[in-house]
Amino acid sequence: MSPFTGSAHRTEEWRHLRLTLDAGVATVTLARPDKLNALTFGAYADLRDLLPELARDGSVRALVLGGEGRGFCSGGDVDEIIGATLAMDTGQLLDFNRMTGQVVRALRECPFPVIAAVHGVAAGAGAVFALAADFRVADPTTRFAFLFTKVGLSGGDMGAAYLLPRVVGLGHATRLLMLGESVRAPEAERIGLISQLADEGEAAATAQALARRLADGPALAHAQTKALLTAELDMPLAAAIELDAATQALLMNGADYAEFHAAFTEKRPPKWQGR
Amino acid sequence: MSPFTGSAHRTEEWRHLRLTLDAGVATVTLARPDKLNALTFGAYADLRDLLPELARDGSVRALVLGGEGRGFCSGGDVDEIIGATLAMDTGQLLDFNRMTGQVVRALRECPFPVIAAVHGVAAGAGAVFALAADFRVADPTTRFAFLFTKVGLSGGDMGAAYLLPRVVGLGHATRLLMLGESVRAPEAERIGLISQLADEGEAAATAQALARRLADGPALAHAQTKALLTAELDMPLAAAIELDAATQALLMNGADYAEFHAAFTEKRPPKWQGR
Amino acid sequence: MSPFTGSAHRTEEWRHLRLTLDAGVATVTLARPDKLNALTFGAYADLRDLLPELARDGSVRALVLGGEGRGFCSGGDVDEIIGATLAMDTGQLLDFNRMTGQVVRALRECPFPVIAAVHGVAAGAGAVFALAADFRVADPTTRFAFLFTKVGLSGGDMGAAYLLPRVVGLGHATRLLMLGESVRAPEAERIGLISQLADEGEAAATAQALARRLADGPALAHAQTKALLTAELDMPLAAAIELDAATQALLMNGADYAEFHAAFTEKRPPKWQGR
Repeated sequence: MSPFTGSAHRTEEWRHLRLTLDAGVATVTLARPDKLNALTFGAYADLRDLLPELARDGSVRALVLGGEGRGFCSGGDVDEIIGATLAMDTGQLLDFNRMTGQVVRALRECPFPVIAAVHGVAAGAGAVFALAADFRVADPTTRFAFLFTKVGLSGGDMGAAYLLPRVVGLGHATRLLMLGESVRAPEAERIGLISQLADEGEAAATAQALARRLADGPALAHAQTKALLTAELDMPLAAAIELDAATQALLMNGADYAEFHAAFTEKRPPKWQGR
Repeated sequence: MSPFTGSAHRTEEWRHLRLTLDAGVATVTLARPDKLNALTFGAYADLRDLLPELARDGSVRALVLGGEGRGFCSGGDVDEIIGATLAMDTGQLLDFNRMTGQVVRALRECPFPVIAAVHGVAAGAGAVFALAADFRVADPTTRFAFLFTKVGLSGGDMGAAYLLPRVVGLGHATRLLMLGESVRAPEAERIGLISQLADEGEAAATAQALARRLADGPALAHAQTKALLTAELDMPLAAAIELDAATQALLMNGADYAEFHAAFTEKRPPKWQGR
Repeated sequence: MSPFTGSAHRTEEWRHLRLTLDAGVATVTLARPDKLNALTFGAYADLRDLLPELARDGSVRALVLGGEGRGFCSGGDVDEIIGATLAMDTGQLLDFNRMTGQVVRALRECPFPVIAAVHGVAAGAGAVFALAADFRVADPTTRFAFLFTKVGLSGGDMGAAYLLPRVVGLGHATRLLMLGESVRAPEAERIGLISQLADEGEAAATAQALARRLADGPALAHAQTKALLTAELDMPLAAAIELDAATQALLMNGADYAEFHAAFTEKRPPKWQGR
């Protein structure tokens, strides 16, 4: 637990998603399999609140985000969310859309790598959650669909128009966001949208293995790598190089860098502390 | 017609290009086929003026840019333009180069998607026009050539050094802009420079079909997707997410979003109004 | 020699690398082949100082950076550098990391294209030097490894977290920087990390041929193309287009642009002056 813990207590039960913690690996599972894990207001809110809580916890070193059943996540629930938003006033609409965007910010800014374990459909907000992860481990059944225009909305939802061009280039991103068509696993891999292709049915297990490796490794180095990748998309070269210099100077005072040198000298594997 | 129309009258005749309008689809054709559609001062100026005029018109929902004859566009005319610029003073040179750049800004900022229908040569300014489009529908005869260094000029012309790295990555972009060599269709598709490969001789028809689909669909959603893709290349993540939230809140008050929900509920296809 | 030469004299001997100059082509060779060209403090400092000196010289029009022996560069020397940094105080650590970053800035900002001739291992700082070059000419034995996390440091070292996403996209970059695994030539070519694949054992000769072609061509146009590619990664579209316009107006007053027109008119190859 972080020493910077205030009065707010921890959430005792997450009702709109499933959370397990296992020696540094947090696993968050969207668990409405009868609805292809369609997102409800409660699920968005839980994701928004869970990620900063895990960040404050201090023990999480990698997070896997997956979906139960036939697919990863079909996006916002048409019945619950689209119907309800049609009755909202302007302020409420802005609140809702800011909440969904905060989930993406939290995924990009939390101090541990996030691995999306994807199979079947990853549509709408589900596609953007996967896009905002650091790794997309996907099996051959995966279909990404940024289908926002198909419901009359902008393809730029929750940061997708910022993130997708930086992952697959502006040409592919324009096509995917404007047309909203499905991208199957072979194309997704070819254009750089999949980080690691898993065997069919093995996305969750492959993602867990990667999370375990990250959590047991030099976790502070991983966390800083993520932080710099996120920050330096928005920085000029000279500032990025200065940030890198300060970060490396910091980590050169850390336990893991000294441990690497000791292990190298003693010709043994390092025992990483993640600090 | 937009209600925000002032005193300036519409251009009655575009003398340096061909324009047709068909139920929301504007088709602009470069029509100097005996010169591979080499650009003249008049053609640049017409493109600069036409795009904002179409934007103010309000009825255009998609635009196809193509070339008549054996190729798309061979770039600035060597005889007319290079010869004439050698006699210009510094102020005139700046005026000329700002004019060509304004065409690219207009292509990126007009409130409808632009589809370049490319076949044969797309060289120099022709290559940059295609690059600035939202979609590049190209047939197998296509050759892109950013040949500016071959005439002693910078490969960064009309925004190419900004756009190309964001479409194909910095490594490929450096090679293409520095060396000015031709990129044939298979490589262009592999690196993400082609959005959709058409059968030989079918680029124009394929581009028209895509434009028709875009114009008949949720056109305001398409326009906003384009606007966000353009704007968010220049924005940090947090600001992009805020812009997305405001945009979606706006579109959730629009006709097409309500129509999607009604159609979904009634199990029928939506009748898009583009508003 | 540039007219803007002050009192500081030129370095008479570069002790930590090998430099040859041949009619506009500078060749810098890392020459500790028994250590896979592992970098020492002296080698970093020489690279930091050499590049601005060559820039002031004015006669260099292309630079090849290569490594002698079995590989390109294995990165910072574990014995000399990691051991020594463990004994440094905070200020010294910052000095060291700023020095290495300055090499990358110099590679991106020097007024001539840089070609990395890569074979065998390009690891750690060696991988980042190659990444910072304008061209990576690599043979099939090449293995890139951004292995910083494997020593307990951030994958964002010397600008890597800025540059790599802009070359290969954020997804691939995250994987490579976070995990530190080797990328062999076929994958490196597929994701855009190799500019030109050379035959085995031919990386140096292929890079020399490219450097010769660049040096004998319109070298000022090449230099400005590089400068704009570097600068426009950090600029919004409208500013980039304005910079392009000013740059082309400048080069249209240059000798090579007039020479192109004369040669074209006289149906002969241009005689480039690089001015």
